[in-house]
Amino acid sequence: MKRLQQQIEFILEIDKLKKIIRQNYLADGSRKESDTDHSWHLAIMCFLLEEYANEKIDVLKTMKMVLIHDIVEIDAGDTYAYDESANANDKRKREVLAADRIFNILPQDQAKTMRDLWDEFEEGKTMEAKFANALDKIQPALLNDASGGKSWLEHGVAHTQILKRNEKTSEGSKVLWKYIKEIIEKNVIVGKIINK
Amino acid sequence: MKRLQQQIEFILEIDKLKKIIRQNYLADGSRKESDTDHSWHLAIMCFLLEEYANEKIDVLKTMKMVLIHDIVEIDAGDTYAYDESANANDKRKREVLAADRIFNILPQDQAKTMRDLWDEFEEGKTMEAKFANALDKIQPALLNDASGGKSWLEHGVAHTQILKRNEKTSEGSKVLWKYIKEIIEKNVIVGKIINK
Repeated sequence: MKRLQQQIEFILEIDKLKKIIRQNYLADGSRKESDTDHSWHLAIMCFLLEEYANEKIDVLKTMKMVLIHDIVEIDAGDTYAYDESANANDKRKREVLAADRIFNILPQDQAKTMRDLWDEFEEGKTMEAKFANALDKIQPALLNDASGGKSWLEHGVAHTQILKRNEKTSEGSKVLWKYIKEIIEKNVIVGKIINK
Repeated sequence: MKRLQQQIEFILEIDKLKKIIRQNYLADGSRKESDTDHSWHLAIMCFLLEEYANEKIDVLKTMKMVLIHDIVEIDAGDTYAYDESANANDKRKREVLAADRIFNILPQDQAKTMRDLWDEFEEGKTMEAKFANALDKIQPALLNDASGGKSWLEHGVAHTQILKRNEKTSEGSKVLWKYIKEIIEKNVIVGKIINK
């Protein structure tokens, strides 16, 4: 059964995402989180917080999107949000090559579905993609705050950098952005985020 | 905004699931996987393999179910599938207490939704719960096979134990059970699973 064989091969291939480590810490600061920790967390946030999306969203599609959005990092690696040179350089090119390779392990119809979901997330134009992108920014801010700003401090992150990175978060959810904006400002005041 | 505050509190509480370690290894055998690694993997398997469910399923509900099914282990811990005394003893009692505490951090309506999803998974009667339970058995078997039977060998697991644990897997998916059954039998032949 070739179709099932391809699906299982993909399922085993994406196991590698568990080994891609992000820069932010768990809420208790004990270790950095993996891409799968992060993606799992976003998927639950999708359905718990959907009421705050600026417009009604297709929750199933949004959950699929956040569950697969980082799979390209199996080949491309995690580029830290505030590593501006790596982000400016070839991040996009590396990720597209990864998407071409990894999603095409699947049968053709599912490879296309996955690629469409990833493209939609990356383009950030639909309400689902805007909400998914907002959660992708909000979750690390929540964990950073909970861990005493551990990763902000380690990387010397500035308020302006965070605001720039979040310039579209309110397009996904005005309510959640207001909530997170206040958390960020509180961390500027207590010196966990550089005030510039 | 008390409602959002409760939701965020829950989202931070379940961050602890990332620290609950299971007995089975990643596909490459490099480390044991966490409950969040496992739950993320199941959620993707839900929508990639839904065509093999014995009857049509509500994919969104099934994905929610697998994403939250292990949250009770934050308090109750992971009970190894083949630790028969721990399973027989007070596993269920510990998990119900955990569900009472953790889901009730949420606003009442969402606490009820989460508890209903968890109860449905545990009872295993609906098609969605049967398929979710099947995936929950199939995923570790795939990883175990990929890692050269590492966790089967470490725990001296017998063929009859695995068959007993999987006695309802075919109720979720006859096709997937046939596939996994052959993988298990292959591992008995090569001595990764004890032939008794």
